[in-house]
Amino acid sequence: MCSTQETLDQRSERRISVGIEATAVKYDAGVQLSGKDWLCLHRNENLFVDPNWAIELTKNMAHRFSISLYPDPECGELRAAIAELYGVSSENVFVGNGSDEVLSDLLALLRDSYERIATQDVCFNVYYLLARRFNYHHVKIPGNTFLTGQLAVEDWDGLSIVDSPNSVTGVQLNHENLLALKKNDHSFLIWDNAYGEFAGDVPPSPIEKNVVLVRSFSKFYGLAGLRIGYCIAHSSIIKELLERKDIFNVNAVAQLMALEALQRREELMGFSSQMIECRNSLVNQLQNFGFQVHKPSGNFVLTKHPTFSGQEIESALLKYNVAVRRFPGKLTENHVRITVPPVAGLSRLAHALEEVLNSE
Amino acid sequence: MCSTQETLDQRSERRISVGIEATAVKYDAGVQLSGKDWLCLHRNENLFVDPNWAIELTKNMAHRFSISLYPDPECGELRAAIAELYGVSSENVFVGNGSDEVLSDLLALLRDSYERIATQDVCFNVYYLLARRFNYHHVKIPGNTFLTGQLAVEDWDGLSIVDSPNSVTGVQLNHENLLALKKNDHSFLIWDNAYGEFAGDVPPSPIEKNVVLVRSFSKFYGLAGLRIGYCIAHSSIIKELLERKDIFNVNAVAQLMALEALQRREELMGFSSQMIECRNSLVNQLQNFGFQVHKPSGNFVLTKHPTFSGQEIESALLKYNVAVRRFPGKLTENHVRITVPPVAGLSRLAHALEEVLNSE
Repeated sequence: MCSTQETLDQRSERRISVGIEATAVKYDAGVQLSGKDWLCLHRNENLFVDPNWAIELTKNMAHRFSISLYPDPECGELRAAIAELYGVSSENVFVGNGSDEVLSDLLALLRDSYERIATQDVCFNVYYLLARRFNYHHVKIPGNTFLTGQLAVEDWDGLSIVDSPNSVTGVQLNHENLLALKKNDHSFLIWDNAYGEFAGDVPPSPIEKNVVLVRSFSKFYGLAGLRIGYCIAHSSIIKELLERKDIFNVNAVAQLMALEALQRREELMGFSSQMIECRNSLVNQLQNFGFQVHKPSGNFVLTKHPTFSGQEIESALLKYNVAVRRFPGKLTENHVRITVPPVAGLSRLAHALEEVLNSE
Repeated sequence: MCSTQETLDQRSERRISVGIEATAVKYDAGVQLSGKDWLCLHRNENLFVDPNWAIELTKNMAHRFSISLYPDPECGELRAAIAELYGVSSENVFVGNGSDEVLSDLLALLRDSYERIATQDVCFNVYYLLARRFNYHHVKIPGNTFLTGQLAVEDWDGLSIVDSPNSVTGVQLNHENLLALKKNDHSFLIWDNAYGEFAGDVPPSPIEKNVVLVRSFSKFYGLAGLRIGYCIAHSSIIKELLERKDIFNVNAVAQLMALEALQRREELMGFSSQMIECRNSLVNQLQNFGFQVHKPSGNFVLTKHPTFSGQEIESALLKYNVAVRRFPGKLTENHVRITVPPVAGLSRLAHALEEVLNSE
């Protein structure tokens, strides 16, 4: 579907040349694949939303798109609908061009108050890019969450941005442990909860001044192509974000389709349940092959084989037109991250893995 | 079509309370109107692109939208198509979420090199917002272009951002006068050319390191709802913009529809010719009513009546459900900006103006 931005060879080359240091500031969006019958399990897209369902939805909505007119700059209807879902006010909701923009606008705003930003040891790589963009001093929250699943928050305060479920490992932090990051007036927590619906997360309540929950329409709602992210926060923060943002930041089609998706949560819950069933099958399948699997809570698993390196698994699967994702860095380089596919994809992946593991 | 974000009364109140100072940092996107048969001539949308044409286009394209998948982060196909149109390389093209984002990304990048930014005396109000966002010292280029139509560039250098055609007045600067703003190594010109296709502007050639041309799909292409802006610049600048931008900054639907619009330039040229005919009629009409009209080169006119104040004209037209735009500030407050409507709208506007002017 997409054009090939770089060949796989170029990608490998870039990976080799950049190493960990450069990766820290250069985000790899996952290679774009086209021209073959690829099974794309490398970008955590929602593979359970039926493409035909999405096409029909688009066609039915087309007469309301008003593509020639400017979109509502304040996303009034969408913010009201999101607010209703969470039982908060529109004044507690900000919508952006993907959670990328929401995070960027938040970090721009918070830079006035904080010089340092803290993340988990393994986290969404965009945080590195944003820390650099706004000239934050970037540090790790103590606790080695990759290995322990726990943040060591006792003597820690300041600004933190934490993805839970983690966008690399899929691990969901204990809420009490996570929310301890907003324990005092010097603390501020951005809880990046892109996979939150899959994990059954609930926003902190009541809304406090030093915590923001960031969510997305890209995962649970399966609208990654439309770029809709949002956050739930104290009205004083939302007011500042609205005043500082780009004027027409959210596309008219995106606003309308997000509203429609909110009306169809029941159908989407169905897709989500199917995903969780397939995720259980995938975990079993991987464990039967001898893989170690991080406890998943998103629509993907992070896994490691005791014999084969991450690079070997990734490269071998590519020969079967199966794309998975690998992250540089000591902790993660021997893992692969696999987006959960529907049943047909599971069989295909199992077949490919079998061939790969038996090829030795 | 859109929800009413604020009532007209609230809007007037806000205008009165903000005055010129606050306007300098708060952008007014033009009130959102709904619930009545409004003639919306206040936001410079392209009113000549037939809504049914746009709806059909959308329906026909829906099967290719892939809304569940991430869009191409580098807008590869679209950048190649734009590059072909201008006879440049893809490496000279950057695409953003509306020209708002392109301008923001450019000013973020250039802040490393410049502390001061200069604009015309009357300009796109977003420049004020961006200057504040990136902590630029904002100054006016000498020359009182609102009155003279000329920049006094002799002893002037540094970073300038200039909208020509001007987004308030519609006036097109003489190219030689404009391009003198990039005269030496200390100078950098961002030429904001959102209305350039209507005015027959051509990009500076060859591409130099200190000039960027910014264009949009919102005006000539009539895709304001989809948020697609781009710039043509030296590859060294484009490379930096690509490295720093939000990852998935341009919506999948926007990328595809922009590509389709580029294939339909002939049809769009037809809409544009119709607009220019109607613009001529509008200018005649206004002059017959005694209005003074700035020489237009976009899809709108800025005009002033010798007897009635801008506020009187604006308020009176609102009673006829005709919305026009007024800009605070000494130079502009007695003018109204009117987007050129198709023939039916012209008659309706003429009728309303006649009633207004005879009501005294």
